[in-house]
Amino acid sequence: MAYKDEQLNEEKVFKDPVHRYVHVKDRIVWDLIAAPEFQRLRRIKQLGTTYLTFHGAEHSRFNHSLGVYEIVRRMIGKFTNYPHWNREERILSLCAALLHDLGHGPFSHSFEKVFKLDHEQFTRKIILEDTNIHRILKRVSPEFPKQVADVIAKTYADKLVVSLISSQIDADRMDYLQRDAYYTGVSYGHFDMERILRVMRPIEDQVVIKSTGMHAVEDYIMSRYQMYWQVYFHPVTRSAEVILSKILHRVKFLYETGYTFKLKPTHFQSFFNQEITLRDYLRLDEAVVYYYFQSWLEEDDFILYDLCERFINRRLFKYIEFNPNTQMKEWMELYRLFQDVGIHPDYYLVVDSSSDLPYDFYRPGEEEERLPIHLQMPNHELKELSRHSDIVESISGKKRTDHKLYFPKDLLEAVKDHKLKKQIKEILYGQGEGQLVD
Amino acid sequence: MAYKDEQLNEEKVFKDPVHRYVHVKDRIVWDLIAAPEFQRLRRIKQLGTTYLTFHGAEHSRFNHSLGVYEIVRRMIGKFTNYPHWNREERILSLCAALLHDLGHGPFSHSFEKVFKLDHEQFTRKIILEDTNIHRILKRVSPEFPKQVADVIAKTYADKLVVSLISSQIDADRMDYLQRDAYYTGVSYGHFDMERILRVMRPIEDQVVIKSTGMHAVEDYIMSRYQMYWQVYFHPVTRSAEVILSKILHRVKFLYETGYTFKLKPTHFQSFFNQEITLRDYLRLDEAVVYYYFQSWLEEDDFILYDLCERFINRRLFKYIEFNPNTQMKEWMELYRLFQDVGIHPDYYLVVDSSSDLPYDFYRPGEEEERLPIHLQMPNHELKELSRHSDIVESISGKKRTDHKLYFPKDLLEAVKDHKLKKQIKEILYGQGEGQLVD
Amino acid sequence: MAYKDEQLNEEKVFKDPVHRYVHVKDRIVWDLIAAPEFQRLRRIKQLGTTYLTFHGAEHSRFNHSLGVYEIVRRMIGKFTNYPHWNREERILSLCAALLHDLGHGPFSHSFEKVFKLDHEQFTRKIILEDTNIHRILKRVSPEFPKQVADVIAKTYADKLVVSLISSQIDADRMDYLQRDAYYTGVSYGHFDMERILRVMRPIEDQVVIKSTGMHAVEDYIMSRYQMYWQVYFHPVTRSAEVILSKILHRVKFLYETGYTFKLKPTHFQSFFNQEITLRDYLRLDEAVVYYYFQSWLEEDDFILYDLCERFINRRLFKYIEFNPNTQMKEWMELYRLFQDVGIHPDYYLVVDSSSDLPYDFYRPGEEEERLPIHLQMPNHELKELSRHSDIVESISGKKRTDHKLYFPKDLLEAVKDHKLKKQIKEILYGQGEGQLVD
Amino acid sequence: MAYKDEQLNEEKVFKDPVHRYVHVKDRIVWDLIAAPEFQRLRRIKQLGTTYLTFHGAEHSRFNHSLGVYEIVRRMIGKFTNYPHWNREERILSLCAALLHDLGHGPFSHSFEKVFKLDHEQFTRKIILEDTNIHRILKRVSPEFPKQVADVIAKTYADKLVVSLISSQIDADRMDYLQRDAYYTGVSYGHFDMERILRVMRPIEDQVVIKSTGMHAVEDYIMSRYQMYWQVYFHPVTRSAEVILSKILHRVKFLYETGYTFKLKPTHFQSFFNQEITLRDYLRLDEAVVYYYFQSWLEEDDFILYDLCERFINRRLFKYIEFNPNTQMKEWMELYRLFQDVGIHPDYYLVVDSSSDLPYDFYRPGEEEERLPIHLQMPNHELKELSRHSDIVESISGKKRTDHKLYFPKDLLEAVKDHKLKKQIKEILYGQGEGQLVD
Repeated sequence: MAYKDEQLNEEKVFKDPVHRYVHVKDRIVWDLIAAPEFQRLRRIKQLGTTYLTFHGAEHSRFNHSLGVYEIVRRMIGKFTNYPHWNREERILSLCAALLHDLGHGPFSHSFEKVFKLDHEQFTRKIILEDTNIHRILKRVSPEFPKQVADVIAKTYADKLVVSLISSQIDADRMDYLQRDAYYTGVSYGHFDMERILRVMRPIEDQVVIKSTGMHAVEDYIMSRYQMYWQVYFHPVTRSAEVILSKILHRVKFLYETGYTFKLKPTHFQSFFNQEITLRDYLRLDEAVVYYYFQSWLEEDDFILYDLCERFINRRLFKYIEFNPNTQMKEWMELYRLFQDVGIHPDYYLVVDSSSDLPYDFYRPGEEEERLPIHLQMPNHELKELSRHSDIVESISGKKRTDHKLYFPKDLLEAVKDHKLKKQIKEILYGQGEGQLVD
Repeated sequence: MAYKDEQLNEEKVFKDPVHRYVHVKDRIVWDLIAAPEFQRLRRIKQLGTTYLTFHGAEHSRFNHSLGVYEIVRRMIGKFTNYPHWNREERILSLCAALLHDLGHGPFSHSFEKVFKLDHEQFTRKIILEDTNIHRILKRVSPEFPKQVADVIAKTYADKLVVSLISSQIDADRMDYLQRDAYYTGVSYGHFDMERILRVMRPIEDQVVIKSTGMHAVEDYIMSRYQMYWQVYFHPVTRSAEVILSKILHRVKFLYETGYTFKLKPTHFQSFFNQEITLRDYLRLDEAVVYYYFQSWLEEDDFILYDLCERFINRRLFKYIEFNPNTQMKEWMELYRLFQDVGIHPDYYLVVDSSSDLPYDFYRPGEEEERLPIHLQMPNHELKELSRHSDIVESISGKKRTDHKLYFPKDLLEAVKDHKLKKQIKEILYGQGEGQLVD
Repeated sequence: MAYKDEQLNEEKVFKDPVHRYVHVKDRIVWDLIAAPEFQRLRRIKQLGTTYLTFHGAEHSRFNHSLGVYEIVRRMIGKFTNYPHWNREERILSLCAALLHDLGHGPFSHSFEKVFKLDHEQFTRKIILEDTNIHRILKRVSPEFPKQVADVIAKTYADKLVVSLISSQIDADRMDYLQRDAYYTGVSYGHFDMERILRVMRPIEDQVVIKSTGMHAVEDYIMSRYQMYWQVYFHPVTRSAEVILSKILHRVKFLYETGYTFKLKPTHFQSFFNQEITLRDYLRLDEAVVYYYFQSWLEEDDFILYDLCERFINRRLFKYIEFNPNTQMKEWMELYRLFQDVGIHPDYYLVVDSSSDLPYDFYRPGEEEERLPIHLQMPNHELKELSRHSDIVESISGKKRTDHKLYFPKDLLEAVKDHKLKKQIKEILYGQGEGQLVD
Repeated sequence: MAYKDEQLNEEKVFKDPVHRYVHVKDRIVWDLIAAPEFQRLRRIKQLGTTYLTFHGAEHSRFNHSLGVYEIVRRMIGKFTNYPHWNREERILSLCAALLHDLGHGPFSHSFEKVFKLDHEQFTRKIILEDTNIHRILKRVSPEFPKQVADVIAKTYADKLVVSLISSQIDADRMDYLQRDAYYTGVSYGHFDMERILRVMRPIEDQVVIKSTGMHAVEDYIMSRYQMYWQVYFHPVTRSAEVILSKILHRVKFLYETGYTFKLKPTHFQSFFNQEITLRDYLRLDEAVVYYYFQSWLEEDDFILYDLCERFINRRLFKYIEFNPNTQMKEWMELYRLFQDVGIHPDYYLVVDSSSDLPYDFYRPGEEEERLPIHLQMPNHELKELSRHSDIVESISGKKRTDHKLYFPKDLLEAVKDHKLKKQIKEILYGQGEGQLVD
């Protein structure tokens, strides 16, 4: 690479509650952080609607992105003396780490599902098209933006570089587990990252773990498992996600059926039409979404109004355990009964299965993109982790799915027809309300 | 009080990173938290623009309000056996603690200054006028809302109750110091709250501290001192505040001078006219503010556009030490020079003194509203803290002010007239740029 | 119970790094802590030789005993309103918690094995025979000492009381896991005890866990698993234990064969003769043991001198993986070769299997004394934990044993006969020294 | 220096609860840690009798010594690129840091006072005379041991090296404040060491602090102040120290007056005769001291027996505030009354002033050996800290002394002559016992 790393006169630091300090010495990194497309990540929460369950989880993707960068920086610091590590990949690794989530929009999961988007494509576009980020990256070399995008897309030739941010034990996950645990305040999510960094060894195309560090990795895997079930798949968070998705569906439906909005959804138009320009995409941050939701409290359409009101004021749906595979009959009946009492079941009777959410704890072989974790034995042989660890083995095979049925208890209670109401409640709660989780 | 405390079937908890858990047993408290006016606090950051300096500081006033409630709950738990503590004030204390910041709007400091508002008046209105909060409070008794408002306004007869949330060492401060330290990640802000709670003694009209706990209180006072200078008055945060104020000034000016906005500032109108209804006020959260700022990037007025762009993309003003009292001449000269080079000094040359910001570390006698801290000696005599503690004495007498001059370095650099530019820079930086703090 | 709880004038606290404060309000508890037999626990390390591996692990059994007391105190505080909890058992539970480890001597594991002792018998004796502890307990009632001893011996009628300090998730373990993690500095050992205390429910004869708290219990079980393999069974600690045991064996052998000591092992005499009085037992603390070991550096017997020198100066044995069940032939050969080169194999060639050490992570059915953990489902049915948790199930079935062969590498290196030396090394290390763990 | 740093094949780490890991790469350092004279520090508590007040404070000088080494290692890591830092001093700095407390004996303060010793002389002897430590150091170069001793003695020519472990803000203090806070569990003692390390700048003959880091240093100074008054000078700890000193005085007196001991104080003999050899000194660890104290419980001399019993079983003296300068008359009277009732006042009536204990918080000019802290202003000028910081200024001028009078309340209570007893109590407590601190 012809580019000579341009260093800042003096190292800069960001005070970070998780890693204490984030250190920046490269001017490129400094300038990327200052770019509007990166600053925009401050206006997008790392955990979307989770703050409605864990009030501390109000941190942004900006936080997390700095954290991933910092972990990669520390990894590389330990790698410099290993033969397989190519020192010329340093600045590439740092930039890819910093920018890996750049294309996230507000409440990505719901938006992606409803509007058939893919935030990774937008990450790519922001890096490759005519943006501040692109112009900064190009200062390294003309092909540098493409290299950064390729690392993030996992198509870059040097798989070792890719694995820093995309493997079963990469900087991305190590940051978010710790960070999300810190901000939610849950006691899971802690593991000995310093030890993991110490036992990481870069070999040809991946980072492996010295087998003496296996227990630290077990602990990390357990943290992940606990964070998924305790935080990421929390049923209250999913209730908010359900409502959010239904708002988007409703507004799309209204738009398509010619409803006259008091506040026209200008910012959403290109989303409805599936012709989203990068400029439109970058303008849509959480503030804009909240602005619309609040404004739609003035709309005449009851469903849109009601759903927005629920989201804004946190009047979420209640839920019961409900398996759509085995309870199809009840489902059909409830659907019909909801129609009969005038509660639109397409919006108000929703099965959510946690496997719809990003589920990625350790399952070797299932996710082709994420490399499994290999232990390096004293004789330098490699062993896949679950072959060596009882604990990891125990959780790696089993896919666990959690199904819940969400519905607005308050609307049901307000139903006038006592007979229908009773029928609905009997299906939902059986004899008592014992089944109702709260 | 005729009201019999209505308890929840089962205690509810919120996971809180600072206090581990926030415990709720009273239905009133539970319902207040669920009220839209309280949920709205989730959309207002506790520390306004501080997140632009400390990226972790993205927590909301919702967080802090729960925390103050929890501390008061713990205090009261320790008070029950003391003769001066009136057990009937329990629910009143809890509600006042929870609601004490209810009237805060987005970026309160700037909004209050520019639009001559007082968030305490809005707290009062939300409690006393026709709101969900009001209706919930009235379930206790018809006069209960007024009592809650009076406690918050410090006019309630039982000064002991008032002091729980308004004294030099109240639940409000104990929460925010710890919370702000936690989210920013700074190491100040920690003190031994558990010990302070143990040595608090309710006497007639205040909470005093057993003298054996003096060192814990010293530590708390020092935390406050450090948090003010390290976090709350951080010059970068103030740079953002300066820009924010200037945006509001500009938009007000444009409105008053008949400028035609592409996006009409509907939500601000009643602010310009000084006829703010409660409904208008409650609608204005941070999302709305950000929505406008982003939209104004499309406006033709350069100043409005530029300031909004700076705020959104964090292109802040630079600053130098500058004392307006002793450097009036330089100020006048700079003002004139800025005019000459076409940079409007009313918006781009701003002196900010930290005493403009809420400055309230321990100064007995200066702030009539905040009661000083009294130590209770072994012989039950009371002594004002600074009479007994060298450390507190040392910082209690001295008012410290920090003056900075803010300006847009980039605009200056772009000035074409080299002579004028050089003159400006000489005043700002002297011979080099050494004075420029960065 | 006729005894009326005598309370201290004012609650006393101990500053504790793990639980922040240990609170004492009962005079009985206060007096027990001040008793010489309890103060003696300050002179016995909680983790014996572990400090030679983790230098922070220098904390005493005094620390831990206070911690167990404090956890039981908090448990009881939550139990008072449950029907199955008998409030009259409060003081009994607190005393049993405080005193449960009272009979521990220095380096209990080695001493118990070599001298065929049982520290639980000594706990019982200290409580029941004529001691300060006994006299204090008797102030409650004549039968109170026996009740305390019975709770500790798990024979007390009210099994709920027993289970507080002797179950799979009792105060004993919850304290030591957290405490040992704190002092060693390892990142395992943390779990959300506050949450576990919140979901504990006293039923007839045990404490069960509300099923919503299952994940917190999983986390606790994992902590235990990790602490066992990372800390308690650490091979370096076991090396020190091996040497310690061999010192005791050697000194016993010398005593029995009429060796003339320069420093007569007066304090050990009754141990050799298996006629240990309580007074002798109580005098033997770690200071006494270290005093002897240091003095024996002056003895003429090489083995005694050498082993003591190793222990005092931490010149431990090295070790390799070695399975005595499958490698009997190598063992026999090594034994003979060690004899040939003049290194006494009874002292210098030692297989240690970790199942010799207290191994008690979750295996329902195997340990009759420790009750398994039951979850209480929403319908109040009980389910044994491993039936409900994949993770616990995965580690509960499997007994894991770790075998190591310990030997003094330095003595081997000093062997003059190169042929024999080579033979030994080939068996130990194969071709290289790769097998040697260190 | 001709010596080429010999590195270990692989970096070794010690798990440390304060610094997480202590890293060792130099074989010299590794070997020094393994030397018997260094391992001996495991048998000497860092805080002497403090564990009788704060039960967690059972950590040894071994812990602290590793910690100081680690901090110096980190400092040097940051210094390598500064012109004033001589890279050749690296190994010297590390060794001096590791060994700076090597000459400490058990309960140094009391032993030094009673036997007129100086642990620093013993540090020097261990380094310079024929010891394992000396032999290891000599491998670097013949003059290396002397250099290490000189750095510790503060006489080494390169004052910058000296200042790393002997200045107002050196590695020694930074470690012990944090470490002692960690083990005692007090919340003081925390400061942002990482930030301090970042703002340290090595200049000619000292380490100065970039002025932007002033607040972190203030916080450190405050920690020191709080730790002194809350932990190091705690009156209960001083009570134990008083008893310990009196034991030593008594045994010396008995020895000198020909008393026949049941257990002859062999280990102390050379201390009594002021002819202490290095070998005698190194043999005297805390285990030996405790062994004697326990054995002396069998002695016929009541005073020796009684004082030992108090120390072993923590039956400490009570105390009142008492100023010997202003209360000489009371003192004389008490002395006479104690004699009259047969309680030997030389052993049982003791004034202790905290300035007898190592009192060294920030007082520029008073302690010639400890360099003051200098801030480096943006213009590179140096300013002494207290000139710039109000807080430091406030505590730096004032010498604070705390006087207490210690006595055995239980012996007084047992006095038969009611009139004399009453007289004593009136002087001690005035009318009530209110003055008695407990």
